[in-house]
This record gives sequence, C-alpha cells and structure tokens, in this order.
Amino acid sequence: MLIKNSQPSAYKSQLFAQASEVRKQIRIGKFNQPTSGVASGLVQGNIVILPQEWANDFLRYCQNNPVACPLIAVSQPGYPLLNTLGEDIDIRTDVPEFNVFRHGKLTETVTDINSLWQSDFVTFVLGCSFSFEDALERAGLTVRNIESNTNVSMYRTNIETTASGRFHGNMVVSMRPFLAADAIRAIQVTSRLPKAHGAPVHIGDPKLIGIDDLSKPDFGDAAEVHPHELPVFWACGVTPQVAIAHAKPPIAITHVPGKMLITDCLNDELAVL
Amino acid sequence: MLIKNSQPSAYKSQLFAQASEVRKQIRIGKFNQPTSGVASGLVQGNIVILPQEWANDFLRYCQNNPVACPLIAVSQPGYPLLNTLGEDIDIRTDVPEFNVFRHGKLTETVTDINSLWQSDFVTFVLGCSFSFEDALERAGLTVRNIESNTNVSMYRTNIETTASGRFHGNMVVSMRPFLAADAIRAIQVTSRLPKAHGAPVHIGDPKLIGIDDLSKPDFGDAAEVHPHELPVFWACGVTPQVAIAHAKPPIAITHVPGKMLITDCLNDELAVL
Repeated sequence: MLIKNSQPSAYKSQLFAQASEVRKQIRIGKFNQPTSGVASGLVQGNIVILPQEWANDFLRYCQNNPVACPLIAVSQPGYPLLNTLGEDIDIRTDVPEFNVFRHGKLTETVTDINSLWQSDFVTFVLGCSFSFEDALERAGLTVRNIESNTNVSMYRTNIETTASGRFHGNMVVSMRPFLAADAIRAIQVTSRLPKAHGAPVHIGDPKLIGIDDLSKPDFGDAAEVHPHELPVFWACGVTPQVAIAHAKPPIAITHVPGKMLITDCLNDELAVL
Repeated sequence: MLIKNSQPSAYKSQLFAQASEVRKQIRIGKFNQPTSGVASGLVQGNIVILPQEWANDFLRYCQNNPVACPLIAVSQPGYPLLNTLGEDIDIRTDVPEFNVFRHGKLTETVTDINSLWQSDFVTFVLGCSFSFEDALERAGLTVRNIESNTNVSMYRTNIETTASGRFHGNMVVSMRPFLAADAIRAIQVTSRLPKAHGAPVHIGDPKLIGIDDLSKPDFGDAAEVHPHELPVFWACGVTPQVAIAHAKPPIAITHVPGKMLITDCLNDELAVL
C-alpha cells in the first residue's frame, strides 16, 4: 500500500490530471487500447480479482513470490475502490478490458465488470514491467520491445514458485536483450524497483532456466537478439495467471495483458533508492 | 578524501587498533606478507608515488578513468603522512613491500623507501578489489580466488583508457566466475562501492573485450570457470601500472601487488548506499 503526500507537487498534479482523464475515457468506454506509453511516468498495475474464499491463499502466494507478484494494493472484500492508488479509481470500470476466467478457463472478455461484481470480490494490484521499462529508457538504454513496438517476449521456465493452497506453477519471465555493459546498467536500474519485479532473475544461457528456443516465446512476440547481446530475464506478471489456471477458482477476473490499470503513483515512488 | 567521525565507534576503535598494530609490524620490518584477509573490514589501498612533475597528469588520468583508478587519497608534495586514511600512516615505511620503476622498468623491490624519498613525491592511494570481495563474501557469495586461495585472474583488454599527458594504455580487468543469479547479486553488491572499482565492466564472452583465452591470465593465477558459470569482469588496479609503464617517468614507486596499504577506513565507509 502506497502512502501519498496530501499536497501533490505541481509535477504530480499534472500527471494525476492526465491519469484521471484517461480513466474517465476508459470508464465511459471510449478507450480500450493497450496502455503502454499512456500517462507516462505513472505506475500501471496488473489486476487479479478473486472471491474472498480464494483471496487469502492468493495473498500468501504473492507474499511467497514477491519478485513475480509484487503487491502494490489489496482491496477490502467487496469494496471496488482503490483509494490508495488514486482517489477516483473504481476497479469495476477503470481498466480498458478484462479477462474472465471460470474454473481456470478464459470464458469472456469485457470492458466493464459491474454486472459480474460480487460482494466478496477482493482486488489485487501488482506492479508491472512498464515501470522499470520507463526507468531503463530514462537511463538511456534502448528497450528492444519498445523500439520495435512489439509485445515483450515471455517464456515459461523451470523455476518453481512457492505454492500457497491451490495456487502453484512455474515462473514466467520476460526477456529483453542487451549488450553486456547495458545489461549491467539494466540490473542496477531495475534493482531500485522491487515493486516492479526488481532485478533480473537470470542472464545468459536460456536453457539453464528451461527455455529451449528464444525465438518461440510462450506469450508475446519474439524479440530479435543481436550479435554479442545477452538475453536478460525478469520475473513476469503473467506468473500469477498461470497459478490461477492451476488453481481453477470458480471465477477470477484479470486485466487483458497490456491493458493495465493506470494509477496516481509515480514510478519513482516505487523506487527503494 | 574520506572524512572520519572524530569519535570512532567501539567497532571502529577495535579495528583501528588491529590496523595500527599491523602497520607497526610492517614499519619495523616484521611483516612483509600479502595483506589479503589482514584487519578484515578495513579498506586496503593500491599505492602509486610519483614526482610532482608527473603527478598532475597522473591525477587527471585517475579522474579520467575513475572505475579503474578510484582515488581515495592524494598527498601534498613531499608530505609522507596520509592523515585522512589513518593518523599514524607514513607511506615511506607502512607498506609491506614496494616496487621501484625507473623509466617504466622495475628495478628494485624494497620494504622501506626512506632512502629513496624525494621532497617532490606525491602519493596516490587507490581503492582496491579487497573491499568489494569482502562485501561479496558478506553477501553470502563464494569468491573463487578466495575459495581456492589463489591470486585473482587479471587480463589486458581492448578497452582503451582516457589518456592524460604521457599516461595511457588499455584497461586491465580482474575476473571472477559466478552462476547467473549470483552474478546479478554481485553486480548489485559491487555497485555500492564505486571507490573500489564499483560494478563490473563486462559479463559473458571474454572475446568481446579482447581476451582470447581465459585460462591464460596476463597477471595472477588462472581461475577455474565451472559449467554454467558466467565470467564477470571488473576494472582492476593494475591498469595504472600499465599506464606508468607507458609513461616512463624517471622514478615511480608502487606497492607490490597483493601487499597493500592498510587504512583506518571501513569498507562500508566507501559504500555510496
């Protein structure tokens, strides 16, 4: 849970106004696109909504696996507002598009979950790689998936997460290629952001974490790895979706990948240093 | 130049007493061994002594190349004491063994430079990898050269340093092998210590920095690189010795590698975070 100053700076007020306007457009159904690059500088969040009966195990799953599942907010049961992340956020309407899973299977994609809302729903907001990509770009590094305007490459690994109740599964990672000196800088920059997956979990040979072919990602698009570049792997917010697919709760709602919740927190407010 | 508290803590006082005792033994000629592991926790320094006519160019060389040549103290010309690093330090006697170079060639190795001292000598003290190896071990990592009780592997590279006057040459690096996750942690840990060479300058393929055969170091001993390990390369304090060999001053005095100046500064006082 993030604590905000009561008097936002002029810089923050300007960004908050942008975020509020985008959320308003999303709320009235006029914006349902991917949110990459929107209200740049503000934290965007991965969303998981579960019935309270399943929420306690999932909360422990996040706490057991903080690199893949960095919690930035958890709601009270049945309470759809997320005041700690933005005064006007209503999770039922303020995400561009939702995936609805029933018993672990995707059954619907919707832009509003008012009709699905249950009085026992608990909302989880998890930090997302957009925050650290913003930091990498501001550090002067080129992020391949942004440069090529493609989705980042994501892979299932052989790294087991720590189970909690019925939630379990292997870690999913995202990969960005860098020359060695830039990879070292990327490790420094992302270490500052543990609430956005933090430092990489692996660098170099993909086979060591169970990835046989970098050109065939399990999610997202393949990224070109240029000569002399090292693949650098970060824990990925798709990991909890895999755990949900294993757990098979009667209902679970997530954002559609890439279409995130835009918050009123600065990326730099997530930084530990 | 390091600023010390006027009232050292009990922890510091205890280490200062150890350091002062070792320096006393060195001063009276009873200790001339390598200083690795001696007065553990305190900064040890690389030493370069040059006539003032050469010192200004060398000072600029260090400032141009702060990763290879991290300056922690520079003396006044002709002044042999280094009060900022320890109240009782006299550089003429307090290093276990010195190398004397004339016109770039090693001509003598001595345990005391009183008879060689010139009124225009300027002493440079540079941070050393012992400080970051201490930090790596305290972080629970295994440092191969410490584990095997050998000298670290050092290599000439194709990375050009920034010249200053007659001082120039390529960077020398030290190499320590780690599994990927430990390499990432090592980057984090050593990033805190820019005055002890800081983060690595390269990771992975040695050929990319002009090293053809890891098993044939240019200085020190070969280290075993185990399967799945990545070689990680840090800038090395031998770099200035190469620059001195190129510059060929009429006289230059350095410590004998591995036989360092023991200071009264904590390794943790070098840390920026």
